[in-house]
Amino acid sequence: MTTTEAGATAPSEDDGRETVTYGYHHHKSEHVKRLRRIEGQIRGLQRMVDEDVYCIDILTQVSASTKALQSFALQLLEEHLRHCVADAAVKGGAEIDAKVEEATKAIGRLLRT
Amino acid sequence: MTTTEAGATAPSEDDGRETVTYGYHHHKSEHVKRLRRIEGQIRGLQRMVDEDVYCIDILTQVSASTKALQSFALQLLEEHLRHCVADAAVKGGAEIDAKVEEATKAIGRLLRT
Amino acid sequence: MTTTEAGATAPSEDDGRETVTYGYHHHKSEHVKRLRRIEGQIRGLQRMVDEDVYCIDILTQVSASTKALQSFALQLLEEHLRHCVADAAVKGGAEIDAKVEEATKAIGRLLRT
Amino acid sequence: MTTTEAGATAPSEDDGRETVTYGYHHHKSEHVKRLRRIEGQIRGLQRMVDEDVYCIDILTQVSASTKALQSFALQLLEEHLRHCVADAAVKGGAEIDAKVEEATKAIGRLLRT
Repeated sequence: MTTTEAGATAPSEDDGRETVTYGYHHHKSEHVKRLRRIEGQIRGLQRMVDEDVYCIDILTQVSASTKALQSFALQLLEEHLRHCVADAAVKGGAEIDAKVEEATKAIGRLLRT
Repeated sequence: MTTTEAGATAPSEDDGRETVTYGYHHHKSEHVKRLRRIEGQIRGLQRMVDEDVYCIDILTQVSASTKALQSFALQLLEEHLRHCVADAAVKGGAEIDAKVEEATKAIGRLLRT
Repeated sequence: MTTTEAGATAPSEDDGRETVTYGYHHHKSEHVKRLRRIEGQIRGLQRMVDEDVYCIDILTQVSASTKALQSFALQLLEEHLRHCVADAAVKGGAEIDAKVEEATKAIGRLLRT
Repeated sequence: MTTTEAGATAPSEDDGRETVTYGYHHHKSEHVKRLRRIEGQIRGLQRMVDEDVYCIDILTQVSASTKALQSFALQLLEEHLRHCVADAAVKGGAEIDAKVEEATKAIGRLLRT
């Protein structure tokens, strides 16, 4: 799927043809925009290194980029919990355990970086 | 400076005049290469969002990019301590206090992201 | 309290009226044991400072304690998602949104430390 | 140095019988006080678990304790850089490289928790 749609007409979970779309689908263009800004920050870092900017100023910019990435991750995670995890809970059965374990592991990886 | 100089003749990009160069200068091209790889990871994230990849897999990739950024920051910091901070210590005077405080604040910002 | 119960009807402490019990209730004594170990680590840190142990060794022990706290937080979070959040999803209505937002904010606080 | 000297008679770096004292030595009682406060927070966490406090409130308290630990680590690190690392720089020779590498690894461990 190469949908670039961001909202509005976004086919929802239950519309028939639809195969799978995850929670974050509804904010796709917002996410891509956010990631492009982060990409720009990383290119800015390359310029800073190239122009011999003072180390501490580079580190400050690294902190800003890391924070932006974490914040993107948090939004994605929130949508994941709201959709995928909640859906599994509603469906019942064993899936909720698997989903929760998977989400917790992902959070653990974020914490450890 | 007790540089063990990696790039041998490595003067900076484009000049003879050269005013200041910081510790990380000696690994400039290595740093830029590392940052380009991170830039590639961020573009990969955009593709993943665009292609509706499963949220958890995107989060795993975010963790990898954050880790790569932190690891770049650590290397920069090590060079900063080895050169700028150590130089200030050798010079004596009040500068070392200022440099150490500045470095500690930068580390604090990295920890808090 | 040293309840080790894990089961189904899990009533709280001592009562029949039963008010609320949260997911982590089922692993209460395990959690308390884990926290006691962390408390011991913090007391160990005091001893290290008191006995003039080398700074770097103290920092290593701080990292271990922080990791232990994060790992406790992750387990608590997993139980919270499995019980409180999943329950809200099953009940339906607006509560799931509030629960997910609340959990995401808590994760954000953990990330930022 | 604006040491508020904790150990009163605390022998300093260069006084003969003295074996080793590290930078943080000068703030010893302050550090111990800080760690006692953290120990109190951890005991507070045990009470919270024992009294079935809401998971999210426990997580908030975990974040506060982790932040307090990180902040203790940062102060220790600052003193380490100011004393041990700066001393090695002044002495010259290979020790500064070893000290910087050691400090960087400690920072890396803090970042990864």
